[in-house]
Amino acid sequence: MLATFEDIKAIYRNDPAARNIEFLLYPGLWAITFHRLNHFLYRLGVPFVPRFFSEIVRFFTGLEIHPGATIGKGFFVDHGMGVVIGETTIIGDNCVIFHNVTLGGTGKHQGKRHPTIGHNVFIGTGATLLGPIVVGDNVKIGANSFVVMRDVPSDCTVAGTPAKIIIRDGMRVEEDLPRTKEPATAA
Amino acid sequence: MLATFEDIKAIYRNDPAARNIEFLLYPGLWAITFHRLNHFLYRLGVPFVPRFFSEIVRFFTGLEIHPGATIGKGFFVDHGMGVVIGETTIIGDNCVIFHNVTLGGTGKHQGKRHPTIGHNVFIGTGATLLGPIVVGDNVKIGANSFVVMRDVPSDCTVAGTPAKIIIRDGMRVEEDLPRTKEPATAA
Amino acid sequence: MLATFEDIKAIYRNDPAARNIEFLLYPGLWAITFHRLNHFLYRLGVPFVPRFFSEIVRFFTGLEIHPGATIGKGFFVDHGMGVVIGETTIIGDNCVIFHNVTLGGTGKHQGKRHPTIGHNVFIGTGATLLGPIVVGDNVKIGANSFVVMRDVPSDCTVAGTPAKIIIRDGMRVEEDLPRTKEPATAA
Repeated sequence: MLATFEDIKAIYRNDPAARNIEFLLYPGLWAITFHRLNHFLYRLGVPFVPRFFSEIVRFFTGLEIHPGATIGKGFFVDHGMGVVIGETTIIGDNCVIFHNVTLGGTGKHQGKRHPTIGHNVFIGTGATLLGPIVVGDNVKIGANSFVVMRDVPSDCTVAGTPAKIIIRDGMRVEEDLPRTKEPATAA
Repeated sequence: MLATFEDIKAIYRNDPAARNIEFLLYPGLWAITFHRLNHFLYRLGVPFVPRFFSEIVRFFTGLEIHPGATIGKGFFVDHGMGVVIGETTIIGDNCVIFHNVTLGGTGKHQGKRHPTIGHNVFIGTGATLLGPIVVGDNVKIGANSFVVMRDVPSDCTVAGTPAKIIIRDGMRVEEDLPRTKEPATAA
Repeated sequence: MLATFEDIKAIYRNDPAARNIEFLLYPGLWAITFHRLNHFLYRLGVPFVPRFFSEIVRFFTGLEIHPGATIGKGFFVDHGMGVVIGETTIIGDNCVIFHNVTLGGTGKHQGKRHPTIGHNVFIGTGATLLGPIVVGDNVKIGANSFVVMRDVPSDCTVAGTPAKIIIRDGMRVEEDLPRTKEPATAA
């Protein structure tokens, strides 16, 4: 309940179009609220049912959040159609993501195979982040960017396909992203 | 009614796959038809209801068009899943957009914060246009392009992430887009 | 039936998150199964009905597969929201595609106007392939790539907007894609 209250506050903090009780109309809010219940069932080890519920939520909202994903407080998804968040994803507090954002796997890893996202991270429309990468705090990821097996340091803005750092600590730069360390063993 | 007739003509003008009465099967046509009613309610100042209807339409069609958006005649949206059109967007006549096109805001502006699109503009699949930018007439925007706070002159083709002008007045070029003027005041 | 069995095997071969009977929860599997029936009706020359069914399937699954598309065995679509596959598309065996992949037309061609895809092709999230192009066997197409009127040779990896070859026969390269031959006549 408290978590949902924080998620509602995140809508009004981030969306200038939100008025009166319009938070009820955000598919992302419905998806994240049901995900928080679903994630609880998943952690209890209930088989099949949480995944079934996540597909029902996808049908109604257009967001596909695997029940295993761990999501911090004050999470805001705007529009939300086409969002995919993988099983071993971890997201910090006060993050904002837009429609068609993918936090997915490469298909080459086992175990932890989806991104770990810090706090205060903003991920624009259509951005795709793949693999067990680490994204720091206070990061902006531009719309339509593509990051695969590269980490993103804190306090920067990245953009492009493939993505590069374009702002770091407030200064314009053009730097490649550091390669993500491959896990020592395949499992 | 007349507007819907023009929208139906736009389907047959633009889609070689459309046969007999298949216009009934275009989710984009349903979405734009309901949007035209919805926009009328919005302009009357009705609270909440137009936004509620726009989310119902999103559920059935996959397109999310804010009731505030102003859209010209002969508008064709092909496929349409994942389309997002923001509140202060203005679109001219005879425009064509594809699925996953976003006409959105940057989150940094107040008032007019979404794009203004001219006439005869074609926007490819997955293109993202953000901010109170101005796109001229007879423009093509390539699939998966990203334009943020840059204007697009008339009679050109742009592509890329970030987008550049690649054809101007029929000649191949490679030019940067001019920066959009920031509004003089924050409101 | 056999085709569906091969499609189910493709899920477990490709997705590390799939457990027990979770194949029932893949919208892509439902879409491809109904598509195979639909394609049969289309080839019998039944008007309107197959297209109507394809839009019903789109409503329930988020995938829009034109009944005319020819799809090989062992086809796996993960997540699937926003996938668009055009009427004259041909896809070989054991291909994998992700959500928001478009196999579409340019609007400039008649007759065969969508891609021909080989065997063992992997197409990442949000990739857009347009026109009557030919993609060889054992190809990977990176997320968010854009290929228009360019062919993709066998045994390579392409990425970017516009896409280039980045791996060929296992070696890192950076090569442009060869231009697709325009059909000799407009029809």
